[in-house]
Amino acid sequence: MSRIPTTLKSRIMSAEQAALLITPGMTIGMSGFTLVGYPKAIPAALAASGHATDLTLCTGASVGDDMDGVLARAGIVKRRYSYQSNKSMRTKINEGSMGYIDMHLSHVPTFINRRAGGIHVDVAVIECAAITEDGLIPAASVGASDAFVRMADKVIVELNETIPLDIIGMHDIFEIGVPPNARPIPITHPLDRVGTNYIPCPPEKIAAIIVTDVHDQYPAFIEPNEVSRVIGGHIIKFLQQEVSAGRLPENLAPLQSGVGGVANAVLQAFAEGGFRNLTMYTETFQDSALDLLDQGIIAGATTCAVSFSEAAGKRFYGNLAAYREKMILRSQELSNHAEVIRRLGLVSMNTPIEVDIYGHVNSTHIAGSSVMNGIGGSGDFARNAALNIFATESIGKGGAISCIVPMVSHVDHTEHDTQIIVTEQGVADLRWKTPRERAELLIENCASPDYKPMLRAYVEQAHKTAKGQHTPHDLKQALSWHQRFLETGSMK
Amino acid sequence: MSRIPTTLKSRIMSAEQAALLITPGMTIGMSGFTLVGYPKAIPAALAASGHATDLTLCTGASVGDDMDGVLARAGIVKRRYSYQSNKSMRTKINEGSMGYIDMHLSHVPTFINRRAGGIHVDVAVIECAAITEDGLIPAASVGASDAFVRMADKVIVELNETIPLDIIGMHDIFEIGVPPNARPIPITHPLDRVGTNYIPCPPEKIAAIIVTDVHDQYPAFIEPNEVSRVIGGHIIKFLQQEVSAGRLPENLAPLQSGVGGVANAVLQAFAEGGFRNLTMYTETFQDSALDLLDQGIIAGATTCAVSFSEAAGKRFYGNLAAYREKMILRSQELSNHAEVIRRLGLVSMNTPIEVDIYGHVNSTHIAGSSVMNGIGGSGDFARNAALNIFATESIGKGGAISCIVPMVSHVDHTEHDTQIIVTEQGVADLRWKTPRERAELLIENCASPDYKPMLRAYVEQAHKTAKGQHTPHDLKQALSWHQRFLETGSMK
Repeated sequence: MSRIPTTLKSRIMSAEQAALLITPGMTIGMSGFTLVGYPKAIPAALAASGHATDLTLCTGASVGDDMDGVLARAGIVKRRYSYQSNKSMRTKINEGSMGYIDMHLSHVPTFINRRAGGIHVDVAVIECAAITEDGLIPAASVGASDAFVRMADKVIVELNETIPLDIIGMHDIFEIGVPPNARPIPITHPLDRVGTNYIPCPPEKIAAIIVTDVHDQYPAFIEPNEVSRVIGGHIIKFLQQEVSAGRLPENLAPLQSGVGGVANAVLQAFAEGGFRNLTMYTETFQDSALDLLDQGIIAGATTCAVSFSEAAGKRFYGNLAAYREKMILRSQELSNHAEVIRRLGLVSMNTPIEVDIYGHVNSTHIAGSSVMNGIGGSGDFARNAALNIFATESIGKGGAISCIVPMVSHVDHTEHDTQIIVTEQGVADLRWKTPRERAELLIENCASPDYKPMLRAYVEQAHKTAKGQHTPHDLKQALSWHQRFLETGSMK
Repeated sequence: MSRIPTTLKSRIMSAEQAALLITPGMTIGMSGFTLVGYPKAIPAALAASGHATDLTLCTGASVGDDMDGVLARAGIVKRRYSYQSNKSMRTKINEGSMGYIDMHLSHVPTFINRRAGGIHVDVAVIECAAITEDGLIPAASVGASDAFVRMADKVIVELNETIPLDIIGMHDIFEIGVPPNARPIPITHPLDRVGTNYIPCPPEKIAAIIVTDVHDQYPAFIEPNEVSRVIGGHIIKFLQQEVSAGRLPENLAPLQSGVGGVANAVLQAFAEGGFRNLTMYTETFQDSALDLLDQGIIAGATTCAVSFSEAAGKRFYGNLAAYREKMILRSQELSNHAEVIRRLGLVSMNTPIEVDIYGHVNSTHIAGSSVMNGIGGSGDFARNAALNIFATESIGKGGAISCIVPMVSHVDHTEHDTQIIVTEQGVADLRWKTPRERAELLIENCASPDYKPMLRAYVEQAHKTAKGQHTPHDLKQALSWHQRFLETGSMK
C-alpha cells in the first residue's frame, strides 16, 4: 500500500521549502505526545533557516530534543503552550527568555476548537504514517493533532516511512463538537471504538508533504531501584485491600499511569499482584505496560501515545497487527476527558514533586519559582478518577529534600483533589480525613524518618501560633524549608 | 392529592421517636442544599435529647441554622462532610473541636455510591414534599439525597406540608450508576429531562415519617452595592465582546452563578445586557435569576436548589406549575457533573476570597488556617466550564485587605484552572498568558490603586531574588501580607 494518494504526490517538497510556509509570529500546532510522533524535519529546517522568529508553539505534550531542544536553542520560539520536558527549553523558560503556559492537557484541544481567548492555529505540522483519501493516519501518538488539523489554515505533513503501515486501524478519532453542539462520548469500556481510524482533513488543506525516515528518539528505560519497588509493593497491597473490601472489582478499574521511573516500577509490581484482565485508559503507555500486555495481565488499553525504549519499541512496531486488537490510540481530548475518566472510574497513578502535610500536591515547580515540566494530564486524571494515587520517594537529592513539606511551594492539585499518597515509608489514605488527620497520616506513614521530627515540630508550632485550628499554619515558617534549600542546598 | 400512600401511614411518628433510630457514632446523610430542603424536626429532636453523640453528618451543601447551628451548638456532631456556611459550626471547626472535610460537591454522591474509603451512611434524613408508591418527592433542593437514600440502611422522611404539591414534576432524578456500570448522561440541553420525578426508594426502607410545617429559613436578599454593580457591568461587557468576536453564540452558554451579593449583582446586570433566551445550568438559583426568568431573559434553568428571599420565595411557590415548565431540580451529582458541564460549555461565575498575582484562587480560607465556608461547587464548575469568571471586590474590610495578593494563603483553584478575574477595577483575561503576564494584568487591571505600588514592589523584589524567572516568588515575603494582617489587622 502506498503512504499517499496519487493526487497528493505533487505536494511533496523539501523541508526547507515547506518551512517557508511558516512566517514570523505565527502560531504553530505540532503533533507529538510523550516524545513520540512529533515532526523532525520542519523543526530542523526552521532552526537552520532562522527565518521564522517569534513563533508560538503548541503541542499535545512533550516531544524529543530534535524538536523542542532544536527550536529552543535556535531561539525562534517566543511562547510555548501546554507541556514540555526538554532541558534546553526549560532553561530558556526559567531564565525568563521564553514564555510558557502550563495547561491541563484535556483543555488544550477544547480551547483550540472553541478558539478560546482568540487562539488561532496558523499552521499545523503533523507527523503521519500515511495519508488516505479521507485524512491523516497519525504516527504512534495522537495528542492534539485532530484539533490542530481542524482549526489550522494549512497543514504540513511529515510522512515518516519508518512507521509500519500496520499502525492503520489502531487509532480512534472522535469529534466531540463544540458547545452548544457537543455530543456525548459513547465510550463505556477502554476498548470501545467510537470514531474513525484517521484524522479527517480536506486534501486542499494539505499545503506540503515531506517524506522523512527519522525514528522517534527512544527514551531510556530506567530500571526501577529498590525504593521504587517498595512503593510499587505498597500500591499493590492497597489495591488488593480495596478488592477484598468489595470496593473494587477483581480486575480493578482502568488504570492510568504517569511517566518515569516510579511509574514504570509501579506497573512492574502489577506483574506480581495476582491481578488478571486489567485494562488501561491512559495518556501514555510505557515498557512495563507492554510487558503486562504481553503477559496477559493487561487485556487491553486506550492511550494517547506509546513511549517505549528501543527494545520494547522493536517488539511493538514489529507486531503492530497483533497489538491493534488490544490497543487504541486516541486524541488527548478523549484520553484525558473528564467525562470518560469519571464514567470508567479510573485508578490514577502519578508522581508528584512534593506533597504538603495537608495533602496539597506540587507537580510542576522547584522552590516556587522554577518550572520543571508541567502539570500534563495529572490534573485531568487525579480530579476525575475514582481513585487517585500520588507516589514518590520520601526524599530527594540524597536526603537534602523532603518530599513531604509543611506547605508546598506551588499547588497543582488541591487538598480537595488528592486521595492516596504513597512513599517507600507507607500509605496515607486521605479520603474523609480532616486536615489535621491528614497531617498526622502523612508525617507518620509517608515522611522519611530523617524529617519526621522537623515536621512534627512544625505542626506543634502551627497549632500554637495559628488563629484557626482547621488547617493550622505558621505563615512565617510555612515556606522556610524551601527558602533554606535555596540558601543552603538542603531543607535540613 | 395525599402526601403519603395509605400503606405507609403507620410509619408516621413523632420526631422524638424517630430520632431514637439514630444512635451514637452513626453516619447520617441529610438532605439540604444552599439553605433549602433540609430536615428541621430531627435536628431539633437530636439536639434536645442529646442521646446520639459523636455523629458524622453529611449533607449536599449548606443548610439553615435550625439544622447546622442547632446541631453544632448541641455538640453532638463530631465530623461534618462536604460543605457548611453556618456561624456556630464554623466557630467549632476553627476552634478545632469539630472535624470538617471540605469536598467538591460533585465528588460527594459518587464517593458515597462507590463506598469510597469505606463510607457507609447509616441513616438518611430527607425532607420531602410527598411520598409516592415509587419513592420520594424532594423539597426545593435535591442535593445528595438520591445517593443517601440509595446507600443508607434506613430512611427517615420529614414530610413538609408547607411545600405545595405542584412541585411534583419539577425534579429530574437520574441514576448514573457505579463503574464499571456507569452510563453516559444523555443531557445535551439544560432543560433535557432524563430521569424520574422522584427519588426511588423501596417502601420497606422508610423507617419513620415525620410530618412538619416549618418553612426553610429565607436568606436575606442583599441589595447590590455600587461596587458590585460595576463588577456586573464589566462581566456583561466582557461577554458582549466574546459574542462580537464570534466565540460565544448570542444567547451565550448555560450560566452558572454562585451565591451571595456579588453573584446576585452580576445576574442583575444581565437584565441590561441585551441578552435574550439565556439558560442556566447551576447549583443554586437566587432572586436575581428568578427575575430574569420572569422577564423572559432566561428561558430555562437546571438547578440543584432554589434559594430565595421571602418575597421571591412567595412568587416561586405560588406559581410552581408555571415554573415547572422552565426549571428542573436535579441532584448535585448531575448539576455539578464534569461530563455535563464540559458538554454544555458553561459560563461559570464564582466569588473568591482572594486571588494571587499568578492567578491561583483561594475560595475557602482566611490567612491560611481558618476555613470560611468551603469550596462547594466552584471547583466543579471552574475546572470544567468553557469560560470561568472569578469576580470579587478588589479590597475587603474597608481596605485593610487586598483581594489581589502576592501568594494566596490557600489554593482551591490553581493557575491551570482560572481564566477571567474581575474586580470593580477591571478585567484580567488570563488565558494563554504566562505567569509574569498574568501578574502584570492582575495588578494593573484588577488590584486596588491602594495596593498597586506594594504589589509592583513585590514583583520587582521577586524578579530580583528568585532563581527561576518563570513564576518568580520571594518565598520570604510571599505570605507576609497575611502575616501582617494577622499581626496588625491590615495588609498595608
